[in-house]
Amino acid sequence: MADDSGYAVREHHAKVFDLPALAPVPASLYPKDATVTRPERWILRTILDVLGHPPFAIALWNGEEIRAFGTVARSALVIRSRAALYRLCLNPHVFLGELYARGDIDVRGDLGVFLQDAFRAYETALARRPYLARLWRERRPRRGSEEASRAHIRHHYDLGDGFYQLWLDHAAMQYTCGYYPRPGMSLEAAQIAKMRHICRKLRLQPGETVVEAGCGWGGLALFMARAYGVTVTAYNLSKPQIEYARKRAADQGLAERVMFIEDDYRNIRGHYDAFVSVGMLEHVGAAHYRAFGSVIDRCLKDHGRGLIHCIGRNQAYRVNSWVEKRIFPGAYAPTLREIMEVLEPHALSVLDIENLRLHYVRTLCDWLARFEHHAERVGGEHGEEFVRAWRLYLCGSIASFTTGWLQVFQVAFSRPGLNDLPASRAYLYAASPPHADLGLQ
Amino acid sequence: MADDSGYAVREHHAKVFDLPALAPVPASLYPKDATVTRPERWILRTILDVLGHPPFAIALWNGEEIRAFGTVARSALVIRSRAALYRLCLNPHVFLGELYARGDIDVRGDLGVFLQDAFRAYETALARRPYLARLWRERRPRRGSEEASRAHIRHHYDLGDGFYQLWLDHAAMQYTCGYYPRPGMSLEAAQIAKMRHICRKLRLQPGETVVEAGCGWGGLALFMARAYGVTVTAYNLSKPQIEYARKRAADQGLAERVMFIEDDYRNIRGHYDAFVSVGMLEHVGAAHYRAFGSVIDRCLKDHGRGLIHCIGRNQAYRVNSWVEKRIFPGAYAPTLREIMEVLEPHALSVLDIENLRLHYVRTLCDWLARFEHHAERVGGEHGEEFVRAWRLYLCGSIASFTTGWLQVFQVAFSRPGLNDLPASRAYLYAASPPHADLGLQ
Repeated sequence: MADDSGYAVREHHAKVFDLPALAPVPASLYPKDATVTRPERWILRTILDVLGHPPFAIALWNGEEIRAFGTVARSALVIRSRAALYRLCLNPHVFLGELYARGDIDVRGDLGVFLQDAFRAYETALARRPYLARLWRERRPRRGSEEASRAHIRHHYDLGDGFYQLWLDHAAMQYTCGYYPRPGMSLEAAQIAKMRHICRKLRLQPGETVVEAGCGWGGLALFMARAYGVTVTAYNLSKPQIEYARKRAADQGLAERVMFIEDDYRNIRGHYDAFVSVGMLEHVGAAHYRAFGSVIDRCLKDHGRGLIHCIGRNQAYRVNSWVEKRIFPGAYAPTLREIMEVLEPHALSVLDIENLRLHYVRTLCDWLARFEHHAERVGGEHGEEFVRAWRLYLCGSIASFTTGWLQVFQVAFSRPGLNDLPASRAYLYAASPPHADLGLQ
Repeated sequence: MADDSGYAVREHHAKVFDLPALAPVPASLYPKDATVTRPERWILRTILDVLGHPPFAIALWNGEEIRAFGTVARSALVIRSRAALYRLCLNPHVFLGELYARGDIDVRGDLGVFLQDAFRAYETALARRPYLARLWRERRPRRGSEEASRAHIRHHYDLGDGFYQLWLDHAAMQYTCGYYPRPGMSLEAAQIAKMRHICRKLRLQPGETVVEAGCGWGGLALFMARAYGVTVTAYNLSKPQIEYARKRAADQGLAERVMFIEDDYRNIRGHYDAFVSVGMLEHVGAAHYRAFGSVIDRCLKDHGRGLIHCIGRNQAYRVNSWVEKRIFPGAYAPTLREIMEVLEPHALSVLDIENLRLHYVRTLCDWLARFEHHAERVGGEHGEEFVRAWRLYLCGSIASFTTGWLQVFQVAFSRPGLNDLPASRAYLYAASPPHADLGLQ
């Protein structure tokens, strides 16, 4: 894709991506000819030095390649114009994604390998040179007020069920980390295993009531009702998702036992035996953790159990600016310390925390393979820029979880003093009881 | 025991207990005769009301019993003098222990049942009436400077190996929560299971190096070397414990592979494949968590794993004043949020957190049974007040873990980006591999 060819695509998808036009870099700022200047070379060499001599090259618009002294490049970041170079140097967090999606930069070699090398290099550099975090700032995630949350959720999840159906699992449309305890598991098997793992941690009993905050397409709610005989009230802000979920409930004869409510988690009412939230805390925003905790405390009965499953971090750091801007508005991945701000103000006791980081690598690889299988079709419907953005997002996420830059936490808790607990967690790893297999499709 | 008979005992054990003489309550403050006055009755009824009508009575020095309206008492707190009543009302956190140890108050019925009822009542009252925490303040735990730590550890652990040998397990002298995954396990089996559980979480490989911060009598260090073929460097501030541990190492032919060092955790040197600390964070003090984290970060290799096992809480609260004063100087049981202050400043990633609360109830019950079996002998050596203090401490701990007032957290972590991880935690629950059984005695 040539320098400017991306613009038409961008205009076409302005509604999906909500892209403001990039202000042109003033012509006075750089020479117009294709020659790479000595200061530009010096800047690039300095950046590669700061990044600790990473194993990738930088290929420039004139065909010239720059690499750190003594390194063998496994891949190359292709920068197609001077404007792209300047933008990238200004703030790679925002512009790596922007420019890649539009084809103003590209990667030669394996995109995944390049991203892992780049993330590792940046993380190491960041630990040694904290000024980098101030120089290249991640933008502050947007606020998660009730109104803003609605807009954020619409932005991401109202893209159309058809798009997600192409690459999510066919069993339950789970848009969160699967669970692959055994080798050779399919995406479908892993998502069912994930849901069962959660239900076992919650120790659901037939006849109990469960409330779910952020239910996606309703896969977990329906699974819990079907395989564990519970009654579920599930909340979600996305109208298309709720409609999809209600239709599935009717098709499966579960409409009586699974109620899907199009509303904010803050409006959850009633008292339940169990609370579950999978992949929603990332959207809540750190400023609202206390409110989220109060909802849990308000709706959980005296013997109640709960589980929060979310993407997290080892250290507090903002979500990548481009991802927050283009893919997940308002997203924030908390550390365990921050997650405890949800639970510790209330009479809630943490029983078990599991980090499923490498399971997300496998989930994302499965998603990416299916996405690439349908890339042409997605491109036909949403345009090439959309395909490139999602490819980068999926590959970037794989790199983040592989390098340990992101984590996945499952936090199981209960009311304190609940003494009817299993003697160990071995029951989570026992062969499935027959009723648990009802969930298999 | 009569009102004053405890004093001689107390003098005798001043060195162990470091008891300052209680200032006498001024005679002008209360009438001298044995009659219970109407204001005293009113105060006691008010307290029982505030505690939400708990199922115990208060028996007074004149034989009178006061109970909350409409309750059936399962036990009674016997207050033997007006001075004891006034002290108890002033601050039950300190004086319940002080007065009980001296026999100025007593419990009719089951001490454990009374304590559970009292703790539940107090916890419920505290949640409804936060002013109680200000009215009845827990004292601030003493600071954990290096010098103070030495004194604290001497206070508790230098009581004599003989005393602890009477009631700790014979397998490894573990003075921390055991692990009872199967019914009918003995204390010895539970402590071996605990050590194996820790070693499995650390995924120790033969030939690796481990550093242990706070090694007690060396049971875990010796177990790791014997059953997992690792080399261990173990730190402890208690000279008698270190001497005991060295002797055990020599007896077991492990002196070459287990080095016991009498020094503070802050002075840990070297680089290790694994870091482990069981039951020491409680002694570190919240002000020193960053320093503790820096030690872990400094001594852990790039592929290193670690585990912290400690008593914790759901919500931040000081350790009981009497326990902090008499039994565990400087002790503080952190919440998970506070434990994360150890790990989050550094390149460390939490893999697994397990709450073993009910396992400590069983451990303590086993300890108490053995302690009671030897109570006469302990009384002969240390005096009746000492026996009563330790009885209250053990029973109070059982009540704390039973009611969910205290927790036990095992936090397993590693360097981030360590991708050589098992597919699930199922391996923790597999049948023991043969080498793991070498640890059995």
